[in-house]
Amino acid sequence: MKRTLKTRVGVILGALLTAAAAQAQSDPLPSWNDGAAKKAIVDFVQTTTTQGSPKFVPTEERIATFDQDGTLWVEHPIYSQVMYCVDRVPAVVKAKPELANVEPFKTVMSGDREAIAKLSMADLEKIAVATLTGMSVDDFSAEAKKWAAAARDPRWKRPYTELTYLPMQEVLKYLRANGYKTYIVTGGGQDFVRTYAERVYGIPPEQVVGTALGTKYGYDKDGRPFLTKEPKLLLNDNNAGKAEGIHLMIGRRPHAAFGNTAGDREMLEYTGAGDGARLMMLVLHDDAKREYAYGPATGLPDTKVGTFSQALYDEAKKKGWTVISMQKDWKQIFSFEK
Amino acid sequence: MKRTLKTRVGVILGALLTAAAAQAQSDPLPSWNDGAAKKAIVDFVQTTTTQGSPKFVPTEERIATFDQDGTLWVEHPIYSQVMYCVDRVPAVVKAKPELANVEPFKTVMSGDREAIAKLSMADLEKIAVATLTGMSVDDFSAEAKKWAAAARDPRWKRPYTELTYLPMQEVLKYLRANGYKTYIVTGGGQDFVRTYAERVYGIPPEQVVGTALGTKYGYDKDGRPFLTKEPKLLLNDNNAGKAEGIHLMIGRRPHAAFGNTAGDREMLEYTGAGDGARLMMLVLHDDAKREYAYGPATGLPDTKVGTFSQALYDEAKKKGWTVISMQKDWKQIFSFEK
Repeated sequence: MKRTLKTRVGVILGALLTAAAAQAQSDPLPSWNDGAAKKAIVDFVQTTTTQGSPKFVPTEERIATFDQDGTLWVEHPIYSQVMYCVDRVPAVVKAKPELANVEPFKTVMSGDREAIAKLSMADLEKIAVATLTGMSVDDFSAEAKKWAAAARDPRWKRPYTELTYLPMQEVLKYLRANGYKTYIVTGGGQDFVRTYAERVYGIPPEQVVGTALGTKYGYDKDGRPFLTKEPKLLLNDNNAGKAEGIHLMIGRRPHAAFGNTAGDREMLEYTGAGDGARLMMLVLHDDAKREYAYGPATGLPDTKVGTFSQALYDEAKKKGWTVISMQKDWKQIFSFEK
Repeated sequence: MKRTLKTRVGVILGALLTAAAAQAQSDPLPSWNDGAAKKAIVDFVQTTTTQGSPKFVPTEERIATFDQDGTLWVEHPIYSQVMYCVDRVPAVVKAKPELANVEPFKTVMSGDREAIAKLSMADLEKIAVATLTGMSVDDFSAEAKKWAAAARDPRWKRPYTELTYLPMQEVLKYLRANGYKTYIVTGGGQDFVRTYAERVYGIPPEQVVGTALGTKYGYDKDGRPFLTKEPKLLLNDNNAGKAEGIHLMIGRRPHAAFGNTAGDREMLEYTGAGDGARLMMLVLHDDAKREYAYGPATGLPDTKVGTFSQALYDEAKKKGWTVISMQKDWKQIFSFEK
């Protein structure tokens, strides 16, 4: 009797395991065309998560880091967070009317898109400081969420948060399903990206590493404590800052890293310098029709936003990093395409 | 037939669930005496994790933060990390012989324990900079691990890492078993604590927030990248810095916070300022026999190491934070006691 029961339970468990195996064998990356890029991802996951594999990685060491702008979502014609800052200027000028006649606020208030596009890095920094600091972290978070719900990308007429790449969303889910902790490591503002990362990418705030400003602890009139965003740069999470930020915030070397610009170079180098299996990938925007085309690597048009230099391309080839061709490797780019 | 099978599987599952429920009902905090402190912990966990409870907290929001020195392990007569720095001085002087006749290194090299104990904060900072920076993060980590394995606390003649409080280890496990992510939020060095936190507390590096110095990305002779620890303070994770560090590194407000000194005040205030159920607890060292007794709160001896001020005690009483009496609330303090 006991034996029979055991056998029957065995049959049920066997059926369940077969179903699970079948599911595991179904394509985890359906938006990817077959090719070297897709194969590199699948091989990496299999080799690092199969018990007994010489390159097996224990669960707690399974860390994967992703640049955001241009890697997980659209960054052209300009980073979404710059749009947020520009869109916030009228409210800032309303609160401080004396700024209306001071550059660069005057240019932004003019609404002249061409003039705005030509603002210098120093001007954009002034706008960033004015629009991202001086309020409580809770007020900032509420404003950023309101903006994300209302703002629309001019080309696709959709919220910026819908312009994420479906193939990369699949990679995030595939890695997580295999025990990887997925992190965003972005040059964008840490507090900004945290306001939507959980909803948009399934990545919780504590797994968002970004350019970070300091905060200052204080009390309101009722003695309730709150944090104010300060114009003090703690971490410039670009270039070498990405490797440094990973050490600061995660404290482990990633086993996989994804980027798309020279600003991701050090993150990929740092990842690749570890032992065992490591996966380094760069998204090349070579699809002017479905998204954008820019490099200047491989002769693509040059750009100041999301520069993929020829030097980076050469380093990738030399070190065995995989370059993802948006045009050839991605069957579908956005989830809203049919 | 199918029905029978279902029923039998149901019986097995039922038995498993009953066993699980029995285990859940067994005492999760056996080293705690019954009393207000133990009750506060159990009530908090039950009220925040029971589906349908008005104070239910979704799993992703379950964050609990713990000070380390004096909260999770012994901090008297002096913080373990200070001992690490002092023990490292001979190696530093060997590498830079010119320091042998410069204070405070001269005093440390003299081996005069009384003189060492009297070193000023400024002197200790000089020692910290000399012993914690200027090497790669990998070299630092290897040194710290070597030290932790070899060094012994003078009173218990055991590795410092064995001097953790068993009742607090139970709280960490109990919270984690109920879906809480446990973080260390320490005034100690983030890189230092990360070298043993996973082994000693089950807390991974990415869940250790501490006083953090910057690092600098560079390459060795073979072009392999590495990070060097720099004498640049990024986060002073004490007092207001604990609330600021929690925002920087976690980005969510904790639901529970544990500390033992005035340096934990802002962390507990920040935790308590959130909505819903929040648990704030302070360990009072009032057990000279089994550990140490210091305050000066409640008339205990005053101390410079781990000061629990009367003002903090009064704030705790006023705000409904729970003060844990080591003497009355803890049945057993260390796991090595029988």
